[in-house]
Amino acid sequence: MGPIDEMAKTTGAWLRSGGPMSDVVISSRIRLARNVKGFPFLAKAGETERKEIFRTLTDRISETDIAKDSVIIDFEELSALDRELLVERHLISRQHAEGEGSRGAVISLREDRSLMINEEDHLRIQVLASGLQLDALWKEINRIDDLIEAGIEYAFDPRFGYLTACPTNVGTGIRVSVMLHLPAMKLTQEIERVLRAARDMRLAVRGLYGEGTEAIGDFFQVSNQTTLGKSEEEVVREFAEDIIPQIVDYELRARETLAAERAYQLDDKVWRAVGILGNARSMSAEESLFLLSHVRMGVHMGRYKAVDMGLLNELFLQTQPAHLQKLHGSPLDGESRSIVRAEYFRRRLGGNN
Amino acid sequence: MGPIDEMAKTTGAWLRSGGPMSDVVISSRIRLARNVKGFPFLAKAGETERKEIFRTLTDRISETDIAKDSVIIDFEELSALDRELLVERHLISRQHAEGEGSRGAVISLREDRSLMINEEDHLRIQVLASGLQLDALWKEINRIDDLIEAGIEYAFDPRFGYLTACPTNVGTGIRVSVMLHLPAMKLTQEIERVLRAARDMRLAVRGLYGEGTEAIGDFFQVSNQTTLGKSEEEVVREFAEDIIPQIVDYELRARETLAAERAYQLDDKVWRAVGILGNARSMSAEESLFLLSHVRMGVHMGRYKAVDMGLLNELFLQTQPAHLQKLHGSPLDGESRSIVRAEYFRRRLGGNN
Repeated sequence: MGPIDEMAKTTGAWLRSGGPMSDVVISSRIRLARNVKGFPFLAKAGETERKEIFRTLTDRISETDIAKDSVIIDFEELSALDRELLVERHLISRQHAEGEGSRGAVISLREDRSLMINEEDHLRIQVLASGLQLDALWKEINRIDDLIEAGIEYAFDPRFGYLTACPTNVGTGIRVSVMLHLPAMKLTQEIERVLRAARDMRLAVRGLYGEGTEAIGDFFQVSNQTTLGKSEEEVVREFAEDIIPQIVDYELRARETLAAERAYQLDDKVWRAVGILGNARSMSAEESLFLLSHVRMGVHMGRYKAVDMGLLNELFLQTQPAHLQKLHGSPLDGESRSIVRAEYFRRRLGGNN
Repeated sequence: MGPIDEMAKTTGAWLRSGGPMSDVVISSRIRLARNVKGFPFLAKAGETERKEIFRTLTDRISETDIAKDSVIIDFEELSALDRELLVERHLISRQHAEGEGSRGAVISLREDRSLMINEEDHLRIQVLASGLQLDALWKEINRIDDLIEAGIEYAFDPRFGYLTACPTNVGTGIRVSVMLHLPAMKLTQEIERVLRAARDMRLAVRGLYGEGTEAIGDFFQVSNQTTLGKSEEEVVREFAEDIIPQIVDYELRARETLAAERAYQLDDKVWRAVGILGNARSMSAEESLFLLSHVRMGVHMGRYKAVDMGLLNELFLQTQPAHLQKLHGSPLDGESRSIVRAEYFRRRLGGNN
C-alpha cells in the first residue's frame, strides 16, 4: 500500500478542523508561483525540458529538509483515481491532475504542504492549515521558498518581480485563499451583498475546488486576484486582519440573528439534512455537500450535538468521488457512487436502516 | 363537544383504507345533483327561499331512515374552521364551506354519506367508500335518492332528465369520482400519457380537493364530466369495469418495473420521505402530501414496514390545516401550522428528536 492509500484514510491538514475562527473559516492556504531560470515557460517547453525541470526541482528539494517528511510523487506513475484523490484533498489542482507530460508533486506527510511541479508554472509552493492561520503560513512558505531558492535560480525581473506563466501571477506570485463556510448569510440572503463587495475589492470568489467550480453547500473560497503592486506581507495582512475577520463577523451576526428570530427555520435545515443523510438510498456528491453544510452549521451553533466536527470532516472528504472509490476498493460509475455514498452516510450516521 | 369534534379524531370513510384495489385506489365517490320542484335554482333564490329549501329538505330527510345514523348540520351555526374540517374530510365541497346564506349538510356518523343542501344545487347526495366500490355505492345512492324522492318532487324534465343549476349536470346529475394514488407512473413519467388519455375520454382529472386544485403528491381524482346521453349504470360500469382497472393496471406495472429495474431509486424516495417526516422542524401541508405519498408507495410495495396504512391515513388527515388546528386546540397562522405539523409528524413517526 503506497502513501496515497495511507493518506486516503485520514482527513488531511485543511480539514483537520480547529484553528482560529474555525466555526466559519474552514482552511487557509498560501501559494507561490515560481519558474526556474534557464528553462522556457511550460507552454513552450517540450517533454525533454519538462522532464529536466522535474528532475532539477526534485533534486533541489531533496537537498533541503523539505524532503525529510515528504513524498515525491511522479504523476506518470500515478493512476487517474489517485491524482483525483489528491485534488479532493486540496493538495494539487484539477488542472495538474488532468494535465499531460512529466509532472508531479512533493507532498508533506502531514498534508500541510504541497509543491506542485510542472503545473502551470515550473513550481507552485502551497501551504495549508485549518482555520485562519495566514501569518503562520506566510512564515512557513517564505522559509520554504528561501530554502529552495538557496540552491536554484528563479526567473526574476528586477522591475516586475517573479516571472510567471500567467501575467496575473507576475510580481510576488502570491495567492492567498481562505475557505469559508457561510450558511447563515445564505439563509438570510446577505451573501450576495458580501460576495459583491468582495468582488469590488478585486477578490476572486470560487467554490470548494477552486477555479471554475461553483460555490456548493455554502462553501466559498476567497482569494486575491492580482499580485502586482502589493508586497506579499500586505496581501497577507489585508486578508488576515481585515477582509476575513469582517466576513466572519457578518456570518456570526447572521447566525445570531437566525438563532434569535428564526430558530425553527435553522433547526429545520439542520434536521432535514440529518434525516436525509441518515436515510437516503442515493446521493450525489453535490447534494451531500449541501447537507453536510447544514449539519456543520448545526454543530457549530450548538443546535445539533449527535456528531462532532471530526466525523463531519471525515464524511465530507470520504464521500468525494475518488475517496469513495478508494474506500470501496474498485472503480464505480456515477450511479453506483451515489448508491455507495448513501450507504456510507447511513452506516456512519446510524440512520434507521 | 359536538359531533364535529368527535369526527375530527377519526379517519373517516374515504380514508379508512382497505377495499378492492386499495393499493392504488384511495376512495370512490358517487354524487347526484337534485333540485326541488317549485323552488328557483339557488342563483335566483333569495334568503327566504334558501331557508325554505333547507327546511323542506331536512324535514323530508328526517322522515326517512337516513336520519337515524346522521347529524343535520346548519352551517350558519358552524365555525369556518369546522366547515373547513368537513372539506378536509371530503364530506362537503370547499364552495359549500365558503358559501353564504342558509345551507348545511346531513352527514352520516360513519361519514360514508353526505347530503349537501344549498350547495350549487338544492340537494347533492354523496356516498363515499375506500377502495374501488362503485357498484355498492351506486346501489346505496340509488336507494337514498328513491327514499327522498318518495316524499318530495324533484325538478325533472321528461326530455332532459333531472334539472340542475349547471348544465353539465343536467340529465342523470351523476358524478362518479375515484381518487387514485399513482406515484410509480409519476416516477416513470408515464403519468402524462395516462392523464391525456383520460382527458381524451372526457374525464376530468383533478387534485385531492376537487375542482380547481392541483394534483399534489401523486394523488389524482378522476371523474366523469358529462351526465347527458349515458345512463347512470353505464357511467358507473364504465368506471368500475374499464377505466379504473386499466389505470390501476398501468400503475401496478410501473411499480413492478421500478422495483425490478430501479429499486434503489424507489427506496430512495421512500426513505428520504421517512427521514424528512421524522426530522423536519417546519412543513407545509403540500410537502407533507408529497412525502406521505412516497411513504404510502413504500408500504404498499412492501418496501417499508415500520408504519401501517392506518397510521399513514391518520397522519394524512390530521395534518391538514383545519384538523391540525382542531388537534392543537386553537387557531394557528400558516407559519405556526407548519411548525406544529412538523412536531406532530416527529411525535407520531418516532424521529430522532
